[in-house]
Amino acid sequence: MLTKTNDLSSMLSPKSIAVIGASGDKRKIGYKLVSNLKEIGYEGKVYLVNPRYEQIEEYPCYQNITDLPLNIDLVLVSVSSAKVMEVLEQLNERQVRSIIILSSGYAETGEAGAKLESEISKFSLEKSIPICGPNTIGVANFKERFIASFSSLKPAADDSIAFVTQSGALGTLSYTLSKEIGIGFHYFVSSGNEAGTDFFDYIHYLAGRQDVKVIGGYLEGARDFNKMDHAIKACHENKKPLVLMKVGNSKKGAEAATSHTASIAGNAEIYENYLELNNIVRVSDEEELTDTLAVFTKTVNPEKLGGVALVTQSGGAGIIMTDRCEERKIAVSELANSTKMKLNQVLPSFASVKNPVDMTAQVAQSPEMIIDTVEITLQDENVDSLVLYLQMTDEKFLTILPRLSDIAKSSNKRLIFCWSGISEETKEKVLKHRDICWIPNPTRAINALSNVRKYYRNNRGIEYGKKEKTRITDEKHLKINGTLNEWESKQLLKEYGVTVPKGKMITSIRDLENEQWTFPLVMKAVSSKIEHKSDYGLVELNINSHEKASRAYKRIMENKKACHPTRELDGILVEEMAPVGTEVIVGALNDETFGPSIMLGMGGVFVELMKDVVIHPAPLNHYQALKMIKSLKNYQVLEGVRNKSRVDIEVLAEVIVRISEMIIDLGDSITELDINPIIVHEKGKGVTAVDALIIGK
Amino acid sequence: MLTKTNDLSSMLSPKSIAVIGASGDKRKIGYKLVSNLKEIGYEGKVYLVNPRYEQIEEYPCYQNITDLPLNIDLVLVSVSSAKVMEVLEQLNERQVRSIIILSSGYAETGEAGAKLESEISKFSLEKSIPICGPNTIGVANFKERFIASFSSLKPAADDSIAFVTQSGALGTLSYTLSKEIGIGFHYFVSSGNEAGTDFFDYIHYLAGRQDVKVIGGYLEGARDFNKMDHAIKACHENKKPLVLMKVGNSKKGAEAATSHTASIAGNAEIYENYLELNNIVRVSDEEELTDTLAVFTKTVNPEKLGGVALVTQSGGAGIIMTDRCEERKIAVSELANSTKMKLNQVLPSFASVKNPVDMTAQVAQSPEMIIDTVEITLQDENVDSLVLYLQMTDEKFLTILPRLSDIAKSSNKRLIFCWSGISEETKEKVLKHRDICWIPNPTRAINALSNVRKYYRNNRGIEYGKKEKTRITDEKHLKINGTLNEWESKQLLKEYGVTVPKGKMITSIRDLENEQWTFPLVMKAVSSKIEHKSDYGLVELNINSHEKASRAYKRIMENKKACHPTRELDGILVEEMAPVGTEVIVGALNDETFGPSIMLGMGGVFVELMKDVVIHPAPLNHYQALKMIKSLKNYQVLEGVRNKSRVDIEVLAEVIVRISEMIIDLGDSITELDINPIIVHEKGKGVTAVDALIIGK
Repeated sequence: MLTKTNDLSSMLSPKSIAVIGASGDKRKIGYKLVSNLKEIGYEGKVYLVNPRYEQIEEYPCYQNITDLPLNIDLVLVSVSSAKVMEVLEQLNERQVRSIIILSSGYAETGEAGAKLESEISKFSLEKSIPICGPNTIGVANFKERFIASFSSLKPAADDSIAFVTQSGALGTLSYTLSKEIGIGFHYFVSSGNEAGTDFFDYIHYLAGRQDVKVIGGYLEGARDFNKMDHAIKACHENKKPLVLMKVGNSKKGAEAATSHTASIAGNAEIYENYLELNNIVRVSDEEELTDTLAVFTKTVNPEKLGGVALVTQSGGAGIIMTDRCEERKIAVSELANSTKMKLNQVLPSFASVKNPVDMTAQVAQSPEMIIDTVEITLQDENVDSLVLYLQMTDEKFLTILPRLSDIAKSSNKRLIFCWSGISEETKEKVLKHRDICWIPNPTRAINALSNVRKYYRNNRGIEYGKKEKTRITDEKHLKINGTLNEWESKQLLKEYGVTVPKGKMITSIRDLENEQWTFPLVMKAVSSKIEHKSDYGLVELNINSHEKASRAYKRIMENKKACHPTRELDGILVEEMAPVGTEVIVGALNDETFGPSIMLGMGGVFVELMKDVVIHPAPLNHYQALKMIKSLKNYQVLEGVRNKSRVDIEVLAEVIVRISEMIIDLGDSITELDINPIIVHEKGKGVTAVDALIIGK
Repeated sequence: MLTKTNDLSSMLSPKSIAVIGASGDKRKIGYKLVSNLKEIGYEGKVYLVNPRYEQIEEYPCYQNITDLPLNIDLVLVSVSSAKVMEVLEQLNERQVRSIIILSSGYAETGEAGAKLESEISKFSLEKSIPICGPNTIGVANFKERFIASFSSLKPAADDSIAFVTQSGALGTLSYTLSKEIGIGFHYFVSSGNEAGTDFFDYIHYLAGRQDVKVIGGYLEGARDFNKMDHAIKACHENKKPLVLMKVGNSKKGAEAATSHTASIAGNAEIYENYLELNNIVRVSDEEELTDTLAVFTKTVNPEKLGGVALVTQSGGAGIIMTDRCEERKIAVSELANSTKMKLNQVLPSFASVKNPVDMTAQVAQSPEMIIDTVEITLQDENVDSLVLYLQMTDEKFLTILPRLSDIAKSSNKRLIFCWSGISEETKEKVLKHRDICWIPNPTRAINALSNVRKYYRNNRGIEYGKKEKTRITDEKHLKINGTLNEWESKQLLKEYGVTVPKGKMITSIRDLENEQWTFPLVMKAVSSKIEHKSDYGLVELNINSHEKASRAYKRIMENKKACHPTRELDGILVEEMAPVGTEVIVGALNDETFGPSIMLGMGGVFVELMKDVVIHPAPLNHYQALKMIKSLKNYQVLEGVRNKSRVDIEVLAEVIVRISEMIIDLGDSITELDINPIIVHEKGKGVTAVDALIIGK
């Protein structure tokens, strides 16, 4: 799927760099770009352009862009926005491979800036030159000693983490927070205004890199659902967990996000469902973001799933973590009796050898107990992860670090070391042991651990790549005009294999009499011009004889004449009543970010009261439809409560897939679809769409 | 309410201290106690007892306890558990005023220890000597330079904060975390095993102290609901916010809590409801605990309620905080046009002057902009609190600290300074400005702010002290034996003014014929021996004529004979059918911690599916009952959905109060009460308890 514009190796691993607007003035961005390259020890070629200098920081300075050699990998542009298009054209002539525009003054400043930005977009697309920014703090590849930023990010520890951010500030903050817990980014990208390359272009590229183990990001909104979808699929194909802090979920937050980098914040609920269904790790604050990256990077993924063991020197911390485990749906292991017996041999008699294991404050007297306890507990069959909690007592516990590090290195289980309340000096000593995954506080440790475990657990169930291959229905190219009435809407659904009640449109009492009916029947006036039909007596239920049918027909015709004398009537729809079942609602809408999306909701009081709806971009495959159904808050209703048995969830999933394919076929010509309700019958008996309305443009 | 045992001034502000088991051996607790007193500069009298020393660290050492003067305020006991009772008896003879037992080896070690502990309890109660511990790390009063602990807690900043903890470890961790954000505790209490004085005794005492502004705590479980209730009332009467991290909420967590300090973890849901209804500030992690204490201590409570202004140098942080505000239900203010105009004058043209205000990275060039922006925004009428977000750029922003501190000091609005990613040195400089409330990360800032705002907002609505004074029903002393059948249960409810359907118990068909009935009727077999009556055809609904009533009577009698030939039948209950309405359930249970408690749940599918229930200790007053009703997840159903109008919530609240008083009167003689359902009719038409069962011991 990578087009030339998406191959970002020239931007993120450049062998040669030019800086347009390089400066010798230490207060200027154009200087910082150069000095940062020098400080980090960049080993590629560096070309500076500024007619007023001969050299800056040892690098030679060229008079003009036209003096530059051809095919430079990356050009950093730090000129005023007024000059930028001219610079870009010149760079194109030098056949440069990628560009970063660091200066601001574009869409974030108003209309003129936005116009200029769209010129940049056009340029990038037409010339197939990937462009980062404008209004970015830049990018870095710390492992390859490359930085293209005016921000003074120093290389930290060297972990296989890539980080992409739509906010420079949050990016640098995450960078700092990650340093504080002893991890460092390999790649760092601030995507800026994304005139050329966007958030998910970077994600897509990084997902394919061998030198990346996990990707983190700060996301305000995606610009292009298909890009996002492909990037996320690339993450899964390459087994790269993607950890996102997605903001702009609140109404005001979304507004602020839109005014911030002019990205589309999008419908929070669709993001929520989409990210959840695609096993993207969502975090809710800054610390959880970097903590989760640390656990992904610094711990192994155990082959065998078990539960978590909590080993502490404090009962309180054990309780806090146990509570949090339950909240986050992590199993706290039952330890085997043999484990407990072994623990009894190494721990004081008043210690608790049940999980959470409370070694008691006694361990301060003999820290080797800690190592014994960790080793014994890690060997337990039911344990896949262990959190060791200690606090303060800095000088005494420092002695266990080498052995703890050995265990972390050699164990095939996940080990997190939560040592709280320690001094800065102690922290530095802990972080020198690069194999130890250290998280400062117990709640934070469990939050991060639960994110990582959830990712791997869910990953086992997900089957990717199916979406494009299998379509249940034949692809069609449909166009509809205006609103389809109920009868027409149902005919269309029928074409897609969705069961609707058996019935017929009639226009006279004779039509009614000529037909063989299976009672009870429903009769409805059909007109795309009349809404709220039941309120006007235009719907009759439970008709159980020919005689009653005739009377019902007459009543409906009279009511129609009385209430809506001038509105067009397409006929009367006579249908057999559908068997009982549980009501759900299926709808469709066209989301700005996600395109055609399908909405599933519980029917009746649930939808009104609890807004129990799930939205997902179309089309879906069967697996996704099932997951969508199961993510309803009141899914339990479909599984059967109050002596009711499970309803036909399998068929419901299939029908959702069919409808999702239908709305893809209808494309732009549909503005709304509303099937309310679909009755889901008991298992094996399918579903019936008893009312339907499709509104075209 | 304070008994002599509850007056803890001798323990927490002692003028004289004795140490039993003082030691010159630096590795021992008995030495640490002494050296800590010396180090902190304790100014009261210190008496040490140990026959083997003449003096330790300048303090003279006595041979025996009998050598001590009378009426010493506080005695620290650090002897083995085997000797402790003997020591206590001797101390009693010296008429000491309070005791702390620091050694461990009691209930936490097993049965023998538990027995010893109950002897300590008995001693404390009989002699009216408050005892802290055993198994405590001790207490401190840093402001008065007093510490009774073997832990090396150094006095930090000097804020009017009291902190009580059931886990020594979590206490010292909170102490460290609070230091990191520049606040310090005045009082610190680790309650240990609570053989004498318990968590809420300390809270009660501290609530009454002038020198305490806010109380924080780590709670695993209360031992005595009445103590807890009184302590919390004392907090409210003295306007002391109580911020609790309550753990042991999960099943495993509760188990661990019980084995930890032998406290009763109690029913998580009742705690939840009780704490919520009493406006206790609940926090969910260690950082939120100390952050919230910081905001309570370091910011003013604005007289006029408005919204929050977010002032940042980064769009991203603004979005993060806006999202979190919505999640935490805080209003982000609309700024007045005049404010925006003023901001436009001081900020760059591309800054955003809408809330969140984005000053842009430009502020790094001219930090005075920050002060101007804060001053202008704080003056906005719609703003009651302001969070200023900056990040890194340490050297440049240091210059604003003095002016920011002045604003914090003089403003009558709440100001939080969130400066992220700064170095340790910068942090120290920030924290020197004692008026500035500094929180390191944006999410943490909003979490803490929302806790504090919620407390003050809720406080306006709460009317305390009513509970004891007004009883709706007359107090009775009832005893019931065994299970009351439906008829008897309803008669009892009627005595308490709860409406039940009009009806009569009959035992023959003649009884039925002799009565004037208003149809439709319900008929039910009444027997305390038969359950699931409808399943056996023992209930008939919608009986609308005399004839049908006779037939129904016969059918029920036949079914009874067929299904339960040997079980006793008390008669047939004939009742008029209650009008329609919304079903709720009211139940009662006897909780180990909270005593008689009342349970309210939504009826029908809601209770089964969504476990939508609220539990609260009895009795309640009308205000609490209303709050209980409103805290149902599906409260909206009672307010009216789907064209249904609001039901009679007022009468429901009154009925809950009446039932809560009834179960208090029934006391121990009741094990369960189940009124399922109570039908709540439309507004003005009251409620009807249509089924009821009271099970006695």
